Amino acid sequence: MPVIALDLGGTKLAAALFDTTGKILSRSTTPLNQKTGRQVGQLVQEQIVSLCRTAVEAAVPIEAAGVCVPGISYEEKGTVWAPNIPGWNNYPLKREIEEVLRSRLPRRSAKTAVRVESDRACYILGEEWQGVAAGASNAIFMAVGTGIGAGILIDGRVVNGAHGTAGSVGWMALQRPFLPEYVGCGCYEYHASGTGIGRAARETPKGRAGAGTRTAHEVFESFQKGEPLGCEVIRQAVQFWGMAVANLVSLFDPEIIIFGGGVFGPARRLLKDIRLEALKWAQPIAMRKVRLAVSALGTDAGLYGAARVALNELSHRSSPERV
Amino acid sequence: MPVIALDLGGTKLAAALFDTTGKILSRSTTPLNQKTGRQVGQLVQEQIVSLCRTAVEAAVPIEAAGVCVPGISYEEKGTVWAPNIPGWNNYPLKREIEEVLRSRLPRRSAKTAVRVESDRACYILGEEWQGVAAGASNAIFMAVGTGIGAGILIDGRVVNGAHGTAGSVGWMALQRPFLPEYVGCGCYEYHASGTGIGRAARETPKGRAGAGTRTAHEVFESFQKGEPLGCEVIRQAVQFWGMAVANLVSLFDPEIIIFGGGVFGPARRLLKDIRLEALKWAQPIAMRKVRLAVSALGTDAGLYGAARVALNELSHRSSPERV
Repeated sequence: MPVIALDLGGTKLAAALFDTTGKILSRSTTPLNQKTGRQVGQLVQEQIVSLCRTAVEAAVPIEAAGVCVPGISYEEKGTVWAPNIPGWNNYPLKREIEEVLRSRLPRRSAKTAVRVESDRACYILGEEWQGVAAGASNAIFMAVGTGIGAGILIDGRVVNGAHGTAGSVGWMALQRPFLPEYVGCGCYEYHASGTGIGRAARETPKGRAGAGTRTAHEVFESFQKGEPLGCEVIRQAVQFWGMAVANLVSLFDPEIIIFGGGVFGPARRLLKDIRLEALKWAQPIAMRKVRLAVSALGTDAGLYGAARVALNELSHRSSPERV
Repeated sequence: MPVIALDLGGTKLAAALFDTTGKILSRSTTPLNQKTGRQVGQLVQEQIVSLCRTAVEAAVPIEAAGVCVPGISYEEKGTVWAPNIPGWNNYPLKREIEEVLRSRLPRRSAKTAVRVESDRACYILGEEWQGVAAGASNAIFMAVGTGIGAGILIDGRVVNGAHGTAGSVGWMALQRPFLPEYVGCGCYEYHASGTGIGRAARETPKGRAGAGTRTAHEVFESFQKGEPLGCEVIRQAVQFWGMAVANLVSLFDPEIIIFGGGVFGPARRLLKDIRLEALKWAQPIAMRKVRLAVSALGTDAGLYGAARVALNELSHRSSPERV
């Protein structure tokens, strides 16, 4: 029977009904249009109600809903901290969803299991379920976009850490000395995120081919044309990505590291160079065995992950001793 | 009922009988005296036989033995890879121990559960059982001695990785550019192990107070006296230890990071400085909450860990659905 999956991004809310094999039965996308706080919560509620009604009309009961949020989900408290949604500091998303399932839908829906998870957890769960990490128990999804974060799977379980912040790879220290610019984002994110690549281009001395390049997108164009500026900025980014891969390999010894996010994308052709850089630094046994790949699910990784979260919740329910 | 614990170090084999509360009932230490390969295996066998006989005489049956090895234990194959013991590349330690339990001891001993674990896993399990990490589910033991390695506990389970090499923190990339000297040990270990500290002192320009300092031990003495050389080398080591702590905090979000190994030891008074350095680099929420501590068990961490491994093996046996 189907489950509901919601992926709340920075600018839009994606919603879908999945069957248990990973097939999408119906889907929709709603722009957030600068909504904040409670408005975003209402949008989530509306999408859940709408998908539940679709399912009720088709006479297929919904037993679980998974929600991917751009921040940290505190499962015990049922709240979400999402820095990019104004007002979502301690937002009671889970309670709101459970409320709407109770009050606005046929009685059966009140029993629907709800689970909210961080985007990085969803990304790796999505890839492990229906993407390039299928079959892996130890896998890492590194999302490189405006910022950098990672979803980490160890022995088949997502690593959340003691306070929900595990996988904050953007904060990795990769280059001494410490610069004041690292405050607020972290050394690795400062240098190697999409934002960081754009900045590096803007700060490159003028008077070379490619000067005027200002965004990560333009840097990749400049690199494609073989201009010194693009090549120099990308060469440095590859070094940081390689060092980050090396550190993840040495610490976690995973089967696969998956690159996703807006930058991969255009950086997908750099995987070989990133591997060569990582080979220099990493624990050699683990490095020889790890696969590097680009996300198979792309912008849908969070949505697939949310569906996987819902299905996991169901299987936990049916075998509670394994919770 | 008691369990056997063995800790195989670089120069000696420690052996003990533990009761289930962590009390040591009897213990012994045997120097390895340059033994290699099969000789080391025989020494392990002899210690096991001797402890079993002690227990049999006291009419307390031994149901499990845990062995801490300086390398990687491949549980399925029952073999050990221990680079510092010549001939222990693929050494069938577990089979040998099981053999001796069958052939040289009363029949009951044949049922004794045997589990071999890497030293880094044992260190963190020991501290979680009877040391400063008691009660923590997310904890890391960083051993800084001749080399650097870490035992990592996530949600109460030791992280081994896909090929047994997880926790190879000595390979962390912390400073660009890559130097050929990092090959064979890793960037972090090169700079911040005991070996690295001694080397840094030897490579410091001559003609300053403290010149002639050659070992980590001498560096700490020079630092204690306030000599420029000792202070400079320690200042740099603190930076690397702080960056390493920061990376572990950002990636794992643990409750506690424990420093152990020969260097902590004398470096234990530097914990505050290491924390200040880490605070600059790490994910701030996780960093504010993490505790830093020095090993409570010291050189016995591996022995306690081996006992814990044996006890865990027993509890797995008695509730096999949780294995």
